[in-house]
Amino acid sequence: MPRNPCAATNFKRKAVDEFALIRRYFARPGAAPGVTTGIGDDGAVLQPEPGRELIVVIDTVVAGVHFPDGIDPFDIAYRAVAVNLSDIAAMGGRPRWMTLALTLPLAAEDWLERFAEGLHAAAAEHALSLVGGDTTYGKTLVISVQITGDVPAGKALLRSGARVGDQIYVTGNVGDSAAGLELVSAGTPDPYLSARFLRPDARVAYGQKLLDVATAAIDLSDGLFADLAKLLAASGVGGTIELERLPMSQALRARFDLDACRQFALAGGDDYELCFTAATLAPPQGDGFAVTRIGRVTDSGQLVCQLEGKPVPYTDHGYRHFQ
Amino acid sequence: MPRNPCAATNFKRKAVDEFALIRRYFARPGAAPGVTTGIGDDGAVLQPEPGRELIVVIDTVVAGVHFPDGIDPFDIAYRAVAVNLSDIAAMGGRPRWMTLALTLPLAAEDWLERFAEGLHAAAAEHALSLVGGDTTYGKTLVISVQITGDVPAGKALLRSGARVGDQIYVTGNVGDSAAGLELVSAGTPDPYLSARFLRPDARVAYGQKLLDVATAAIDLSDGLFADLAKLLAASGVGGTIELERLPMSQALRARFDLDACRQFALAGGDDYELCFTAATLAPPQGDGFAVTRIGRVTDSGQLVCQLEGKPVPYTDHGYRHFQ
Repeated sequence: MPRNPCAATNFKRKAVDEFALIRRYFARPGAAPGVTTGIGDDGAVLQPEPGRELIVVIDTVVAGVHFPDGIDPFDIAYRAVAVNLSDIAAMGGRPRWMTLALTLPLAAEDWLERFAEGLHAAAAEHALSLVGGDTTYGKTLVISVQITGDVPAGKALLRSGARVGDQIYVTGNVGDSAAGLELVSAGTPDPYLSARFLRPDARVAYGQKLLDVATAAIDLSDGLFADLAKLLAASGVGGTIELERLPMSQALRARFDLDACRQFALAGGDDYELCFTAATLAPPQGDGFAVTRIGRVTDSGQLVCQLEGKPVPYTDHGYRHFQ
Repeated sequence: MPRNPCAATNFKRKAVDEFALIRRYFARPGAAPGVTTGIGDDGAVLQPEPGRELIVVIDTVVAGVHFPDGIDPFDIAYRAVAVNLSDIAAMGGRPRWMTLALTLPLAAEDWLERFAEGLHAAAAEHALSLVGGDTTYGKTLVISVQITGDVPAGKALLRSGARVGDQIYVTGNVGDSAAGLELVSAGTPDPYLSARFLRPDARVAYGQKLLDVATAAIDLSDGLFADLAKLLAASGVGGTIELERLPMSQALRARFDLDACRQFALAGGDDYELCFTAATLAPPQGDGFAVTRIGRVTDSGQLVCQLEGKPVPYTDHGYRHFQ
């Protein structure tokens, strides 16, 4: 009989003292609205409000897959929270409570401290409270963020409500993030474009403004073309994108020719802007960003790009269609 | 300018088509109570009930860290859900909605199918609905399960309510799981003890029975001694464990001598039984398992093991104190 039954097994159950780590780096003092019991018990206890429904989202980022090595842990955390906030925004929700599952190759204090700063910076911008977490050892850095939001009952923005004749809109500019990342890989980074990848600005307040306006909404993570196609498919309709109308930043246009810009805008991904459909020609104004009409919902059953009113062939796998 | 901006980056943003995977393997048809919109939109929309508070828990399991290689994916999934259900049970909660973050080295269909079966088997036992998920590529298999439960407002069982003079109880038997794992590593597995590790039986229904009975509760993941010590510390009290009273299975006692059994019972971990304090000498009966009084809450400020009424030195790092 082995003397130490735990050590004799070929793996470790609790390689990281998760409770101490979570408490040390992630717990913040003070009561948060709706939080009866936060970090430190078996679970968090939360008080929802009558007349509101909950929205639950979860998203994982993996080192080397979703972001390159060498990124400031502040940005890794900020971005992990922002991409989840973007899903809440796309439902028209108000972010309330966050849980964090963190798998770490090692628990370096300075790394954790910086990561926690980024996490709380992103959360603080939206009155989001961290209410629970689990920290584990693993060979790859994996961060799963889960956010619970709420929304007035029956009002959540779904992907499935677009109607033929609706206008199609997008917030902000598209293509910056993918271009920013590309320039980092090429060794010729652009600070503005890099920041658009590292610190996406989830359109949370704007999503809430769309509650009685938009017929359907989605956030842009996989690229405008692919994500809008998902929205249209969920709604059982088709649509057009007028390529001349794609909103693109000065920074993007300064670094790439027009065809490349459009490629980034349509297929680059990681924009975390909102794409939505609405009957109105005058949607709510963005606070510090434009809201651009890029096309129209049709009964064609598919998404078609147009240039000067004529269809342009486009598939998600091709990038030379504009040349 | 590179021709393919996405392929030129040194990592993949979406290596796995998460939406298709989640829908194919994890979505189940039919409406679930409280679920307005489930898998397939940016987030799930849920209807909480007035007069109830929410409980949110999250727990991650990592291949090679929390379970050895070669385990049936059914069991990996079942166990990942069960360890989270155990946290809900320790709060006295009713499990409602689950989200899953799955990081996979590769997306083998048979693996995913079997994993999904285990996930749904564990969920179905407790009327738990999977409402969202994110599947990503990564070198290590990492599974984060997040469960939202609910509980009558103000009734959640916390760790902090134990009072001097309360009795200390534990459900079921302790030590089986760690012993089962040890025997697998030694190449002499015991089917009953292995199953106690692979398919822990979260005490969900019993936790709800404790709502007006227990003064404090915790589930046993790190080992009875360590977890009870956490409960007592959170309550600002001390306590005793009477070693003669530790509930241990016939299967455990058949394979190990009494000292080893007690070591597994105190420090083995992964039991997922409930440990709770209550003023009563007659707590609710377990359904198919015993509920055993193992000690008492004291004002000593620390947790002390006793044998024949005398203190026995014990630290979490030593395993030969009983010899």
